[in-house]
Amino acid sequence: MTLVSPSDTGLFYFPDFVREGEFVSATGADEMNHLTKVMRKKSGDKIYITDGKGTLIFGVITQLSRKELTLSVLSAEQQNNRFERFTVLLPILKNPDRFEFAFEKSVELGFTRFKAVKFQHSVKFAVNLDRLNLKAIAAMKQSLRSHLPRIEYSDSLNSALTQGGIPLYFNQNAPSDLSEDFRDSGASYLLVIGPEGGFSSFEIEILKTGVSYRLSRGRLRAETAVITAASLLANKIDFQ
Amino acid sequence: MTLVSPSDTGLFYFPDFVREGEFVSATGADEMNHLTKVMRKKSGDKIYITDGKGTLIFGVITQLSRKELTLSVLSAEQQNNRFERFTVLLPILKNPDRFEFAFEKSVELGFTRFKAVKFQHSVKFAVNLDRLNLKAIAAMKQSLRSHLPRIEYSDSLNSALTQGGIPLYFNQNAPSDLSEDFRDSGASYLLVIGPEGGFSSFEIEILKTGVSYRLSRGRLRAETAVITAASLLANKIDFQ
Repeated sequence: MTLVSPSDTGLFYFPDFVREGEFVSATGADEMNHLTKVMRKKSGDKIYITDGKGTLIFGVITQLSRKELTLSVLSAEQQNNRFERFTVLLPILKNPDRFEFAFEKSVELGFTRFKAVKFQHSVKFAVNLDRLNLKAIAAMKQSLRSHLPRIEYSDSLNSALTQGGIPLYFNQNAPSDLSEDFRDSGASYLLVIGPEGGFSSFEIEILKTGVSYRLSRGRLRAETAVITAASLLANKIDFQ
Repeated sequence: MTLVSPSDTGLFYFPDFVREGEFVSATGADEMNHLTKVMRKKSGDKIYITDGKGTLIFGVITQLSRKELTLSVLSAEQQNNRFERFTVLLPILKNPDRFEFAFEKSVELGFTRFKAVKFQHSVKFAVNLDRLNLKAIAAMKQSLRSHLPRIEYSDSLNSALTQGGIPLYFNQNAPSDLSEDFRDSGASYLLVIGPEGGFSSFEIEILKTGVSYRLSRGRLRAETAVITAASLLANKIDFQ
């Protein structure tokens, strides 16, 4: 699918849109408001819409009211989620802005599965999941992605690991950088970044079945470690 | 040099410290205030200091007044600047918080040379260089680095390129990801990221002598592109 000046078109999220032949109809108060009032789209404008389940449709608006949108389909695509096997365990940080920033960047880079984890050395325990999931939708739309990202809460690393998967954990003293080859592996992975105070000895113990790696020769702030790890891993997932 | 619990010790920046044998003395109103009033260090505490020119000293405080610090040297190291050949051209962004965040993260990752560039499609032209250089010192200290980062202003891409060096520029439609090998090349490089509105056709023309690459299959916000490009390049500089 060719991106026709995406900065002028924009992507809208309608989880329940209905496609009939060459037409798509969609409703949803918040997104209709965003479409008409904020972005000021009108009949004849071309936009993208997604259901958040991998379908990306490019079309031209044929009818538009306050409540409903009708689109004539120009092209449609069903996208695989290349990031489905990867869950990012985000440490809950002292500063909520830095936490949100790290989360938003990881969504832009393509990750769709997240857990906000309370580690033993975390100094803050609470996150606003509703707010974060709204941020995630905005970042999905911004980056023209079609898989809805979701974030959940885990009250410990131990409980976050119970879903299974190979932990990839960042450790300043690890012998090598992230060299794991993900191409032919069907495995699931958990990207694990520690909180400001680092991992506890218990947490290091339960991570030992995983793969440790270094991100930088310097010392990174926790949110920098998240974005750097996400950048390096996403690059491998996208291009390896 | 072994990092003895760096989160408890901290790094302080004294550009004019004087070393005589096993002792170092240092003065500087702001940093002395930070050391004594904010971090509440006292005689017997162990700290790092740097001159911002590659010297990193670890020592124990033997004398401390409001104006002067004396340190007994435990270990000293002269570090090469692995990032000296690389200049990051940062697009001036609409949102100063996002610009600062991208800059701060790039410093933490190790870059020391920056230009804040007004591109033809930039919608904002001004940056506060004094404020940014203070941010840079904080990020240098935070990441335990010993080379002072500096940021300058360029009023166009053209003038930023006059310093010489091979442009590495991010382009969503480039055929490959960043695969340049920097090990044996003695060349200088300019990491170039476009502003929110993208490069102008004139800018793309003058970048054509350089190397273009993709960062992601998705669309990244400008500040995400900066941090992702810096993460990928820093990882090569650190470990290639």
